[in-house]
Amino acid sequence: MNTFGRYLRLTTFGESHGPAIGGILDGMPSRIPISVDRIQQELDRRRPGKSKGVSQRRESDRIQILSGISSDGLTLGTPIGFMIPNHDSRQSDYSDISRVFRPCHADFTWQKKYGIREAAGGGRASARETANWVAGGAMVRQILDAEGISVEGWVSGTGSWMSQDIYEKPTDFGEMDSEIERAIQSRDSIGGRVSCIIRGCPIGLGEPVFDKLHSRLAEAMMSINAAKAFEYGIGSDACRKSGSSVADIFVADPCKKGGITTLTNFSGGIQGGVSNGQDIYFSVVFKPVPTLMRPVPTVDIDGNPCILQPRGRHDVCVALRAVPVVEAMSCLVIGDMLLASQRPLKARMP
Amino acid sequence: MNTFGRYLRLTTFGESHGPAIGGILDGMPSRIPISVDRIQQELDRRRPGKSKGVSQRRESDRIQILSGISSDGLTLGTPIGFMIPNHDSRQSDYSDISRVFRPCHADFTWQKKYGIREAAGGGRASARETANWVAGGAMVRQILDAEGISVEGWVSGTGSWMSQDIYEKPTDFGEMDSEIERAIQSRDSIGGRVSCIIRGCPIGLGEPVFDKLHSRLAEAMMSINAAKAFEYGIGSDACRKSGSSVADIFVADPCKKGGITTLTNFSGGIQGGVSNGQDIYFSVVFKPVPTLMRPVPTVDIDGNPCILQPRGRHDVCVALRAVPVVEAMSCLVIGDMLLASQRPLKARMP
Amino acid sequence: MNTFGRYLRLTTFGESHGPAIGGILDGMPSRIPISVDRIQQELDRRRPGKSKGVSQRRESDRIQILSGISSDGLTLGTPIGFMIPNHDSRQSDYSDISRVFRPCHADFTWQKKYGIREAAGGGRASARETANWVAGGAMVRQILDAEGISVEGWVSGTGSWMSQDIYEKPTDFGEMDSEIERAIQSRDSIGGRVSCIIRGCPIGLGEPVFDKLHSRLAEAMMSINAAKAFEYGIGSDACRKSGSSVADIFVADPCKKGGITTLTNFSGGIQGGVSNGQDIYFSVVFKPVPTLMRPVPTVDIDGNPCILQPRGRHDVCVALRAVPVVEAMSCLVIGDMLLASQRPLKARMP
Amino acid sequence: MNTFGRYLRLTTFGESHGPAIGGILDGMPSRIPISVDRIQQELDRRRPGKSKGVSQRRESDRIQILSGISSDGLTLGTPIGFMIPNHDSRQSDYSDISRVFRPCHADFTWQKKYGIREAAGGGRASARETANWVAGGAMVRQILDAEGISVEGWVSGTGSWMSQDIYEKPTDFGEMDSEIERAIQSRDSIGGRVSCIIRGCPIGLGEPVFDKLHSRLAEAMMSINAAKAFEYGIGSDACRKSGSSVADIFVADPCKKGGITTLTNFSGGIQGGVSNGQDIYFSVVFKPVPTLMRPVPTVDIDGNPCILQPRGRHDVCVALRAVPVVEAMSCLVIGDMLLASQRPLKARMP
Repeated sequence: MNTFGRYLRLTTFGESHGPAIGGILDGMPSRIPISVDRIQQELDRRRPGKSKGVSQRRESDRIQILSGISSDGLTLGTPIGFMIPNHDSRQSDYSDISRVFRPCHADFTWQKKYGIREAAGGGRASARETANWVAGGAMVRQILDAEGISVEGWVSGTGSWMSQDIYEKPTDFGEMDSEIERAIQSRDSIGGRVSCIIRGCPIGLGEPVFDKLHSRLAEAMMSINAAKAFEYGIGSDACRKSGSSVADIFVADPCKKGGITTLTNFSGGIQGGVSNGQDIYFSVVFKPVPTLMRPVPTVDIDGNPCILQPRGRHDVCVALRAVPVVEAMSCLVIGDMLLASQRPLKARMP
Repeated sequence: MNTFGRYLRLTTFGESHGPAIGGILDGMPSRIPISVDRIQQELDRRRPGKSKGVSQRRESDRIQILSGISSDGLTLGTPIGFMIPNHDSRQSDYSDISRVFRPCHADFTWQKKYGIREAAGGGRASARETANWVAGGAMVRQILDAEGISVEGWVSGTGSWMSQDIYEKPTDFGEMDSEIERAIQSRDSIGGRVSCIIRGCPIGLGEPVFDKLHSRLAEAMMSINAAKAFEYGIGSDACRKSGSSVADIFVADPCKKGGITTLTNFSGGIQGGVSNGQDIYFSVVFKPVPTLMRPVPTVDIDGNPCILQPRGRHDVCVALRAVPVVEAMSCLVIGDMLLASQRPLKARMP
Repeated sequence: MNTFGRYLRLTTFGESHGPAIGGILDGMPSRIPISVDRIQQELDRRRPGKSKGVSQRRESDRIQILSGISSDGLTLGTPIGFMIPNHDSRQSDYSDISRVFRPCHADFTWQKKYGIREAAGGGRASARETANWVAGGAMVRQILDAEGISVEGWVSGTGSWMSQDIYEKPTDFGEMDSEIERAIQSRDSIGGRVSCIIRGCPIGLGEPVFDKLHSRLAEAMMSINAAKAFEYGIGSDACRKSGSSVADIFVADPCKKGGITTLTNFSGGIQGGVSNGQDIYFSVVFKPVPTLMRPVPTVDIDGNPCILQPRGRHDVCVALRAVPVVEAMSCLVIGDMLLASQRPLKARMP
Repeated sequence: MNTFGRYLRLTTFGESHGPAIGGILDGMPSRIPISVDRIQQELDRRRPGKSKGVSQRRESDRIQILSGISSDGLTLGTPIGFMIPNHDSRQSDYSDISRVFRPCHADFTWQKKYGIREAAGGGRASARETANWVAGGAMVRQILDAEGISVEGWVSGTGSWMSQDIYEKPTDFGEMDSEIERAIQSRDSIGGRVSCIIRGCPIGLGEPVFDKLHSRLAEAMMSINAAKAFEYGIGSDACRKSGSSVADIFVADPCKKGGITTLTNFSGGIQGGVSNGQDIYFSVVFKPVPTLMRPVPTVDIDGNPCILQPRGRHDVCVALRAVPVVEAMSCLVIGDMLLASQRPLKARMP
């Protein structure tokens, strides 16, 4: 339940306000150079408290590598254990919500499922868990870099603003900022969409039938807190299209001897569940966080009505902080499929 | 790669034009009454050749149970092996496409991945594989029935027609029929959307973190041939919403002593990855099938340009035949999670 | 529960007296030539009714390949479905034992576990299931052959006869025949030991910690019906030895530039869970089958005492028929580990 | 590769001389009281440096629980992360062996497999890893205790001493001590056998075919460093026995209404792969550790002959310290199967 991946498996642990969160990345081939600084950089991108519209919780989020990497920075082929201590946990922020169900959170369902729950900060249901994913993804990304595979995500929509370009990260996020500012002013939150593009992926990743590349991507993205929708390639627009208008016609590729490419890429880089060498692009929609900075009516654990007065630190638009998480999960999926494909890894030292 | 599920595992095999397709459903508890007739009924729903707009291939699709069910129709607790022989395979329909890549099919990517391929009818990439899923799902549905869990899907959009009601199957599909008729006339195909609602699901199904109920549903739905998008609950609309407008407020449930429910169901029956007892609803968008009933330019295996003259039997709108497949995969996901939750099964004979 | 292997997974089904047994071998790389005749030959080795001391049930045991192999005998990279119909099932032989527990069989425990049971021939608990394993193993063996890896098993002990040579199959089995003849005369059964040697295994197969090569072999061998003990290398003799007497001293290997070998092979070809290039050898002990050709006191399903009058066909010494099963399970383990090691396969066609 | 178990999964990490070892126990049901003191007690039993004949490395082996257990000692249903810092690591003890292959260790095979290796203390191949297993097993044992299932192991043989009683831990270990003393005097090591008995196991644990209770036990025990042989019930003696002499005859059990038991227990508490309610007993043989306290000829990484002068701290007879490890792995297997059997757990708080 707490493991992601088949060949490259990330198993994680940790409650939001316990001593630490962390994980084990198992299946990494040996002799891959891993820079811990680069892992830290990815964690820093995800960290809250850096800009407007995101939670002001201040965690240093320093990763500690406990195993699996040699003193000179090469993987040993053994599992990589890591840990991120929790510091700024302010349990008192949550003392009054331990018996109250926040709307649209995991409070109610987890209480019913487990009959026990760490209320502080959402416990294991907190998005803090995604720091583990970012750490794991950052390790795998160092394999992908060497293969020439890049993964780039960005916020492509929030509120009434919706970027039309799915192929390019916009240069101007002014409209986005305005939407978020508006939500802050009204002490409300707002939904958002993250788009992501994977460039340089070789032909042949993904398995037919139940391990299609896009179904693994869908599973991965829908695992991210607050995700409500996933689409790839032409996506939900496919519903209203005719087959003749979205057929990616094959042509000989002038750049490669005997090579073949497609004139268009409605397929989104995946055909029959397997990558075709084109750019893979997809989008994930996140709901507005249900924790508002104003009082909300709800019930307590016994069903008695009460008013929730939230005092924690929360994000106005989770999509902003989801970007490195979407990238990290993409790295884990592509890395897993890369290992499944049994090709020699360029990152591997002789 | 060819196994779906954790506790209840469906492993399948079969090429579209080989002697048979089939599978093994492993993990079924013992002493569950299984009606083979009901499995056959579900297979008949999926079968091609029954109405306009769907492939005219005529397969009897008769299931043969090979093990796991006693002579008086009870599961033995052992794996249920089953087989669906292929009859109407017309290999000659495909003789001229064995060296040609059909656009947006698995032809090119699988050829590159495996270096070999059964061209006839798409081999294992054919949607014929989904008959196995329908068979497996129909077994599991007999457990769900006894629990009072129902799964109902329907076509909720195609072309310019888009049903707004996500909670109820429309009674009038006239607009849909017109859209399909139009596509047939133009020898083209058209995309479509299938909506599905799961009623009666108990509180507590789904696992936190990597086995969220909706991420398993997403993985399952995106495994279906031609699926391009998945959304649940408020779905992609979440992007433009404010948190205050889509918060499902908890209230005491008048029907149950100490019970709790929500006033609205924007969450789509799942909170924190775990079912909350409300209806679970989601949609899947399918692309228009790329095989058209008119000539299409493409390349052959050597990269030489050629014209594809399709003669096979194909669907104008795959969404029509996807409905029982969406339901079957839903049954497999819910059944798997039901077993994971370790509750006693009402279907089980004493 | 009914799947063996990680990368190369054999999932099986089938009751002894149902319409068929069979399985799905998933994970076979594409473009491996598979001779169905060779599979049949292995099945014929396992088949009962061929000599003294083994069950006289006459099954033709004809395998039918249902998928995954092209018309010219190459694997497609898709799952290989296969089936072995049951013919000579004589259900009447078992009519009087459906309510009676045979001693040391699975009758009692399976009845208690599942609350239902196919009494005829042991149902799924029957050693007939091992025909599936032999079929799967025979496919994998065709990969191993090309790698120069051979797997050879033989009966190395029964009754008071115990072959001392663990490295070589004896040429004279006269003593064994006498022991079995003696058991037949006394209408009794007798235990036995099967030894097996795997030659030509490359260095590096096996995973540290929980997937050690020998723990996977142990798991595989102990899965075979009637197995009671497993040992490899110096085995149980290790208990009484001193470290200095069984240390395999490393020396430079004169045959290979810079190569290293060991003077002795007490380790049994595996060190630290990983193959070291030497011969891998191990033994499995099987108990005498508890079904005797004479009346045995027991109880029925309600606990009432009764006398069991067996009329089925049974083996006097299961070790005789276990030899191809031990080999097949060895092939499945080595094949799985070979794929895990990601080396290019010599059997694979260009 | 570094995960053990299906429903209750222990994933571990850690090199012998890195900052820490540790693991994640995933799948523990919620509301189980876990005493960290009891985990520590089991770790203390395994700890080196406590008596003659075992390594004098002095680790405090203090476990730190990082997640999954509430402040009042109840499991949350979330993964239990834990860590055991390494203190007494003396890397200098191993500086001269980083390029030298110790005989019968993992040095050579792991170097060839991974092309890199942590030489100090054996890295991940060190038996220090088993502290993680003892920690995980000690958590699961607290479930078993509440079920009335006990697991007891002891050294039952070493050198020329071999205890005949497989059902009872001997009261006098004088002969064992003499054997060990003798080995110490000769600066040698000696093999040993550990026997283990599981009492109070309910009927019905274990799965047919590939997850037989004894094949999972075999896999678990053979995972322990230096294990060379496994047997259960009548074990390797079965080879020379007749079926009539070792048949466990069923009789009505006077203690239970309608209950059934067996007169004898040659089966070792498991029939058809499933527990039958009798005591489960088995033995594991460990080889003498190959690291001797005297010079040994070997080769270095380039194949050059050299003399190994060991200075580390090593066990004279690993069987002594293997006892709590055998028990811990037994607890993990039984706990896993208990969860698979879906029975309500007595340890679980309301």
